[in-house]
Amino acid sequence: MNKVELREQLTALHQELPRNGLVTWTSGNISARDGDAMLIKPSGVTFEDLTPESMVRTDLHARRLEGTLSASSDAATHAYIYRHLPHVGGIVHTHSPYATAWAANAREIPCVLTAMADEFGGPIPCGGFALIGGEEIGAEVVRVLKGHRSPAIILKNHGVFTIGPSPRAALKAAVMCEDVARTVFLAHQLGNVQPLAQEHIDSLYDRYTNVYGQR
Amino acid sequence: MNKVELREQLTALHQELPRNGLVTWTSGNISARDGDAMLIKPSGVTFEDLTPESMVRTDLHARRLEGTLSASSDAATHAYIYRHLPHVGGIVHTHSPYATAWAANAREIPCVLTAMADEFGGPIPCGGFALIGGEEIGAEVVRVLKGHRSPAIILKNHGVFTIGPSPRAALKAAVMCEDVARTVFLAHQLGNVQPLAQEHIDSLYDRYTNVYGQR
Amino acid sequence: MNKVELREQLTALHQELPRNGLVTWTSGNISARDGDAMLIKPSGVTFEDLTPESMVRTDLHARRLEGTLSASSDAATHAYIYRHLPHVGGIVHTHSPYATAWAANAREIPCVLTAMADEFGGPIPCGGFALIGGEEIGAEVVRVLKGHRSPAIILKNHGVFTIGPSPRAALKAAVMCEDVARTVFLAHQLGNVQPLAQEHIDSLYDRYTNVYGQR
Amino acid sequence: MNKVELREQLTALHQELPRNGLVTWTSGNISARDGDAMLIKPSGVTFEDLTPESMVRTDLHARRLEGTLSASSDAATHAYIYRHLPHVGGIVHTHSPYATAWAANAREIPCVLTAMADEFGGPIPCGGFALIGGEEIGAEVVRVLKGHRSPAIILKNHGVFTIGPSPRAALKAAVMCEDVARTVFLAHQLGNVQPLAQEHIDSLYDRYTNVYGQR
Repeated sequence: MNKVELREQLTALHQELPRNGLVTWTSGNISARDGDAMLIKPSGVTFEDLTPESMVRTDLHARRLEGTLSASSDAATHAYIYRHLPHVGGIVHTHSPYATAWAANAREIPCVLTAMADEFGGPIPCGGFALIGGEEIGAEVVRVLKGHRSPAIILKNHGVFTIGPSPRAALKAAVMCEDVARTVFLAHQLGNVQPLAQEHIDSLYDRYTNVYGQR
Repeated sequence: MNKVELREQLTALHQELPRNGLVTWTSGNISARDGDAMLIKPSGVTFEDLTPESMVRTDLHARRLEGTLSASSDAATHAYIYRHLPHVGGIVHTHSPYATAWAANAREIPCVLTAMADEFGGPIPCGGFALIGGEEIGAEVVRVLKGHRSPAIILKNHGVFTIGPSPRAALKAAVMCEDVARTVFLAHQLGNVQPLAQEHIDSLYDRYTNVYGQR
Repeated sequence: MNKVELREQLTALHQELPRNGLVTWTSGNISARDGDAMLIKPSGVTFEDLTPESMVRTDLHARRLEGTLSASSDAATHAYIYRHLPHVGGIVHTHSPYATAWAANAREIPCVLTAMADEFGGPIPCGGFALIGGEEIGAEVVRVLKGHRSPAIILKNHGVFTIGPSPRAALKAAVMCEDVARTVFLAHQLGNVQPLAQEHIDSLYDRYTNVYGQR
Repeated sequence: MNKVELREQLTALHQELPRNGLVTWTSGNISARDGDAMLIKPSGVTFEDLTPESMVRTDLHARRLEGTLSASSDAATHAYIYRHLPHVGGIVHTHSPYATAWAANAREIPCVLTAMADEFGGPIPCGGFALIGGEEIGAEVVRVLKGHRSPAIILKNHGVFTIGPSPRAALKAAVMCEDVARTVFLAHQLGNVQPLAQEHIDSLYDRYTNVYGQR
């Protein structure tokens, strides 16, 4: 994919955030690793106003390389993750409502659905509270997700970060994270959620990772 | 309906799954019996990318007969159901959120709405846990639904299967299943759900089956 | 409004039912008084397939006068209401989820919102259980709504009927009924709903009825 | 912005109310300060029927200056706010469901999300009950919001008012208010919401106010 195509893809993927109910107004953003740099949403711009040219290119310390707009205020977090997790090619950040409700309880989302075992390989972990502005949030994301099966983390009182080999994979994780956060929330309200056995979780995760989809 | 029309119809019916909020990303699928074989969604393809040609034709042991894509990973379940329930012409599988919340509680959806008595003739039963991969899920669906009034079953910690004489009828059951799962969930939250008398359920089911709609 | 316009309006109003999330699949219907007769949705037809010509004209005992399709299975209820409440020009019936959740608890929706005092003048009453098929449902609607401020009633384990001087007014009541049913449901979940004083309800209802809107 | 543009903008902003799920039928309205006067939605007109010409111009005692339609029945409230809060350039009023659910409990929305600290600088306060018709509601809004960080207030048993330097800023506050009202509601249902430390709230609010977005 060339530079122009990457900008176009990133812009198109951003439209999936409001379409899937993951964001409100200008919150939420997606980035793509681009060689030694990254592309990310500009700060405070509405999703319908995004264009391929408006995407901001920064180095992996979030210093702007190209563009006239300021990068997302989450750029330092994205950059930190790319620096410390070399297999990550795309990152999504949202405050999607059900996942964030679990985060406001500082509570991991328990793995009680086969679809969750497939996609996340277990619970979606909840990281501690970290303030925006420096590298605190990125450090917490990396600390928890490094070596973890789950491509998603919720952060206490904050929201969701998802990672993937590509921005599209990270987007899928963000969409599925909210989906299971909602279903497990609803299940919890009914009062008697049944656990999934660890061996079943392992078996489902293995199968989904190795068999599902087109080869 | 000829072969081309069946593929077109199956593709169009798949669009109803996201439209009715029953699926997320690539999850969920519909199949149609096609003589001694069946047509089913390809695995891991998004709903907007489906075309009539992309539908996979398999025999009733889920072995591909036509097409270049892999069939849905649920194909073995669909095939098992067609083999064991000869009146079934279409099957729908989803992880629709409210129905799946009941399933995560391993709890049947109680019949407390006249619309539910009409369509399901009683509670929507909950089957036991079964792993994907072989015929376990299909066997559980057939064990529970054979001779049952309900065209829908929820499976513990998993999701929904619905059956019907046609794919469209199975789709209707999937849409109505989520609808009543939601309303009964909400009713349950209010804390004092009133039962429907069995004689009223029987009377409503009989009337809906024999009088409703166009003759 | 001539006969053609009435059929067109009734068809257009039906599209508002799915648009406002009040119906699923073919459930729900609207009727309009038409002189000594009424026009009503045909039974079991999806909303997108409705045409002005498909609307069924019946007398006020629900016997078909014009059209080739069968009238809604709720036609006898609508007809009964028109016969007994001469000021009613339009009727809407839905199973909208939040209102029906209250109905499954056989519990009136308490008037705890100024918008509800405006529109309904107090709680939305809940009628007793009645079986479809004869005049039982219509009789229960008339018994409760005759002389009542509320243009909406919920029926135990069933759903909603709303009335109005026109089909559009009845539709507005159906939309607002679901809206307040949802907000009061949510308020109830927070655990400490505050009552509205009867004098405030009376004052709001009086003002809304006599001052609101264009003269 | 000239007079025509202001009318066009106000009309366009009104379309965001149903699009963001904040209003039902004709409820809800937006106004814009226009010199010594204000422009506001006409009373009882549906959002799709609004045109730039239909917006009503009144003085800051809600007396009509231009237009043939009656102004919103909330005009006196808007006018009062403009008179008493000179920095306010736009006002939004809704009965959005989650925020109104908190209002029906006479309960402020606690600040337990970083996004809420950003936008509101603390809890969203709940004002006392006030009847429509005179200046009571406006007086309550001004009493609570004057000098308050939050641009949003919920009013007991009623709904939401938001203010901003422009109508668009007030709209953003209304959208974000419902968003956080929903997430905090969901968090509350899980039963163990974690507080945000006041120092973190202060730090987040300061950063968002001074660093976020484009300079």
